[in-house]
Amino acid sequence: MQSFPSSAIRGWERFYRAHFINSLSGFKSASLIGTVSAAGIPNLALFSNIVHIGADPALIGFINRPREAAPHTLSNIEATGIYTMNHIHAGMVQQAHQTSARYPEGTDEFTATGLTALYREGCRAPFVAESRIQFSLQLKEIIPVTLNSTFLVIGEVLDVCLQEGLLEADGYIAADRAGSIASLGIDGYYACERINRYAYAKPGQPVRPLNV
Amino acid sequence: MQSFPSSAIRGWERFYRAHFINSLSGFKSASLIGTVSAAGIPNLALFSNIVHIGADPALIGFINRPREAAPHTLSNIEATGIYTMNHIHAGMVQQAHQTSARYPEGTDEFTATGLTALYREGCRAPFVAESRIQFSLQLKEIIPVTLNSTFLVIGEVLDVCLQEGLLEADGYIAADRAGSIASLGIDGYYACERINRYAYAKPGQPVRPLNV
Repeated sequence: MQSFPSSAIRGWERFYRAHFINSLSGFKSASLIGTVSAAGIPNLALFSNIVHIGADPALIGFINRPREAAPHTLSNIEATGIYTMNHIHAGMVQQAHQTSARYPEGTDEFTATGLTALYREGCRAPFVAESRIQFSLQLKEIIPVTLNSTFLVIGEVLDVCLQEGLLEADGYIAADRAGSIASLGIDGYYACERINRYAYAKPGQPVRPLNV
Repeated sequence: MQSFPSSAIRGWERFYRAHFINSLSGFKSASLIGTVSAAGIPNLALFSNIVHIGADPALIGFINRPREAAPHTLSNIEATGIYTMNHIHAGMVQQAHQTSARYPEGTDEFTATGLTALYREGCRAPFVAESRIQFSLQLKEIIPVTLNSTFLVIGEVLDVCLQEGLLEADGYIAADRAGSIASLGIDGYYACERINRYAYAKPGQPVRPLNV
């Protein structure tokens, strides 16, 4: 194996280290977060650090970079309390990546990238019409990570819209059948093929594939 | 599309909702976290909510469930300050899944699952020898998420060991070439195939594949 001591990593050029550390933690969820400002300007941005916090209540979090590096999504969520997450499939991955360009304040990334804003009754924030797994969230808490000025933004899942045919008998959403992608590092996108689901593990019993 | 309002989701049976909400956030990193207790008993556990926090300093976080549900990894990290993360490939995914069984306190999951503990100089916590991407971390902060009694555990990356041939010219670690898996929901495991890496996006410029 190749070994990289922390003393060497700390001395690397900034972008080299960013690629290395960003990909070190492995494959990640990547979704488009849709928001709207108090003035009604929609915003769409790609986030790849999304975590499941809990199922009851249904809480999903994401890491927002320091405010000066990524201000719009955070300030819109603070202003309205409502946002959407939208899975990305291979057919929209280039447009999703393009939302990460540094557009001037007030730019509508939907118009800039050609993705379609979809408004549903009861939700001020826009969904992405091209997405096959969409859901809205209500802001619950923004927890500052003082170590590096980032934020863990936690929302409660409100309404969920799924393409037909994704839901398995026990509630599992087959995101692979929707073609949802995973991301790696800053700029890598991946298609996911199922190896298996496995039954709840018990001490002393062999691992058993789950057929739902 | 199929619509699921929050009022319906809240009323679902507990395990159905858990599968649904756990898979809703999309594909996740899944890695084995190796720790050791103050008394020297090793512990190995599967975690699938791992997030990149920042590259300088190099910070990686994970969500730990409530203390009563998942006590050993957390208390070992509190006791020693040191832990390892180890990627999972298809050839070890059943053993990795088996670490999630509720073994009695004091069980060594390495022995119970047949994975191999690997100790390196300067790191009390065990690595997983079968893993192709391994790294150690020093605890920096445990942030309680009071909404549901979980914790965001943040560590600074110390030393990294990679299988030969994974590192691209700009520092990107090709976890796909290591066969690292992604996870979905509570019990799904996936192989990842690269769609593309894309160059840094700029307003008004077409998305360009990155050839490193």
